[in-house]
Amino acid sequence: MPTYIKPALVLDAGRARRNIERMAAKARRLGLRFRPHFKTHQSRAVGRVFRASGVEAITVSSVDMAEYFAADGWRDILVAFPLNILEIDGLRRLARRVKLGVLVEAADGLAALAAGVGRPVDVWIKIDIGANRAGLDWNDRAGQARVCAEAVRLPRLRLRGLLTHNGRTYAARTPEALAASHADSLDKMRRARRALEAAGFAGLEISVGDTPSCSRLEDFDGVDEVRPGNFVLYDVTQLELGSCAERDVAAAVACPVVAVHGRRREIVVYGGAIHLSKEDFVSTRDGRIYGRVCRPRGAGWGPVLPGTSVRALSQEHGVVATTEDVIRRTRPGDILFVLPVHSCLTVDLWRQYVDLKGNKIPTIRACGS
Amino acid sequence: MPTYIKPALVLDAGRARRNIERMAAKARRLGLRFRPHFKTHQSRAVGRVFRASGVEAITVSSVDMAEYFAADGWRDILVAFPLNILEIDGLRRLARRVKLGVLVEAADGLAALAAGVGRPVDVWIKIDIGANRAGLDWNDRAGQARVCAEAVRLPRLRLRGLLTHNGRTYAARTPEALAASHADSLDKMRRARRALEAAGFAGLEISVGDTPSCSRLEDFDGVDEVRPGNFVLYDVTQLELGSCAERDVAAAVACPVVAVHGRRREIVVYGGAIHLSKEDFVSTRDGRIYGRVCRPRGAGWGPVLPGTSVRALSQEHGVVATTEDVIRRTRPGDILFVLPVHSCLTVDLWRQYVDLKGNKIPTIRACGS
Repeated sequence: MPTYIKPALVLDAGRARRNIERMAAKARRLGLRFRPHFKTHQSRAVGRVFRASGVEAITVSSVDMAEYFAADGWRDILVAFPLNILEIDGLRRLARRVKLGVLVEAADGLAALAAGVGRPVDVWIKIDIGANRAGLDWNDRAGQARVCAEAVRLPRLRLRGLLTHNGRTYAARTPEALAASHADSLDKMRRARRALEAAGFAGLEISVGDTPSCSRLEDFDGVDEVRPGNFVLYDVTQLELGSCAERDVAAAVACPVVAVHGRRREIVVYGGAIHLSKEDFVSTRDGRIYGRVCRPRGAGWGPVLPGTSVRALSQEHGVVATTEDVIRRTRPGDILFVLPVHSCLTVDLWRQYVDLKGNKIPTIRACGS
Repeated sequence: MPTYIKPALVLDAGRARRNIERMAAKARRLGLRFRPHFKTHQSRAVGRVFRASGVEAITVSSVDMAEYFAADGWRDILVAFPLNILEIDGLRRLARRVKLGVLVEAADGLAALAAGVGRPVDVWIKIDIGANRAGLDWNDRAGQARVCAEAVRLPRLRLRGLLTHNGRTYAARTPEALAASHADSLDKMRRARRALEAAGFAGLEISVGDTPSCSRLEDFDGVDEVRPGNFVLYDVTQLELGSCAERDVAAAVACPVVAVHGRRREIVVYGGAIHLSKEDFVSTRDGRIYGRVCRPRGAGWGPVLPGTSVRALSQEHGVVATTEDVIRRTRPGDILFVLPVHSCLTVDLWRQYVDLKGNKIPTIRACGS
């Protein structure tokens, strides 16, 4: 194991590679375009592992992230965030370098986009299938038709299709609920497409792709493209939802133990909200938790310690509730590994990963990126 | 107003200065040493405003933060985090440059500290007055006496006193509950000190200092030092607890509007968990919220919009629930200011603030820090 003296974001690169290869193979098998979301790992080095698996098209969540990956040779980039017309200069720069896709949900901004972007841009209509975050309601046919008409009318805009993120799968706590939510989402997307086809907008693609559905389900009938992101690292949320096995979780935060409180069976680790993020998961077994805990094993970490979880986070402290057995075997100065609740938000806090050999792997937050 | 095209952390430097001067004056008036916690603002430039107010001693939450401020001339620094003996090399470097204080809660690590640190170090015993995070139980007289005896016995360690953080004040939702929690904390600290004095450890100081108590209460009888931090910026939590007025909140995140959903009275802003942090506040009026929302006014922001709050955060999106009136007056491309729930965690996400004149103010995360 590399030496850790303070919290570090540790990447098991072998597991990440396996996760990538497995998802790429599944997309090929199902005949889907694989456009992985890079907001999870946010690292050019990890991006290159995707490239080695045959990936050519990617998804990002910001113009900055698009620029970061464009500079590493990516040439087909979808910015999967509602069009922010204030960033038109960045979009124009990007459209010169890459095949750029943007998300829209209203006809309003399209004229400014077409005028400002200078080069052709792919337009995807963001559809809300019931997650109630962003997008046009799946059943708002008039609204969708207006966006389509405007996109078709304006120069430089290429109307590509309908896109959604079924975030509701994160609330699906059984395999049946997951399958039902996914089926409902696809059904709504296909119905929206059929209605637009009937209105004269032919050839629209469908893009979907949350990690729970892409990890566990096989039916993507009518779908053209999938955009999962989290699966590259997975995390406690995906573990609890059943999207992955423990051996698939590819990132953890190494945390020094600074205090052991035997009487209340708690361990205080150096590893808090600024290392893990305050994302929580409400587990039926343990209530609200901020991470699962493992001991070091080999160069990485071993199985999740039973009866053990991060129960509170301050800025720099984590409080681990655990068992008498773990308390007995733990001393200040030990290292524990915390599997994050939401790896995307955890990774975003760091400038770099450390892999199991101790190599530093920069992220988008690294200086000079 | 400076031009914002994507989320930015905005500092109202005038408000921050006023908050600093007010708290420094209060500490002087009450005869307390003022050792503000710098983990909130994490900026050398803001630190210099404290220095201009006569502050010479500071609190930080990590060895890295101590090094960052030591490099800007601070010479009396307390690392208010349980001693992490793995960082002994960093502590040794610091003890050569500054009057260094550390927190301990067990006799175990003291010998390694004394041997490793090379120079004299102030030792504060972390006391748990019932917040159940870190520290020796306030009533564990034998445990405290063991730490005292070891600190007195070992060379280079200077036993300074007892320190606590009464985090319970964040759960006090009425002035009476706040006063009672604070009084209980001070009572326990004074009783612990008396017991140690009776056991032969004379001259111990008492250090306390959460922002709610330091902002609102006047009774610090028996206290030598206060260490509030959050008050420099305040935030929605402090506003809801009554620690500050709206005009005291000195940091906000400027967020472009990217979608307006009239039917469900929601606005989607570019500004998510990676810009605000996932810290929430459970308000009696509104349930779980992630921020309050203001419109631009002058160079900064105006009053909190009634009936409006950030109700959900994704990685880059914030969903604002609001009123019909606000919906009517809001368009994509507008800027809204979000007051964060917990300014310490929000600031930690950024490399810099932008002040109301558009000047960039680096934080500890800036490259080259």
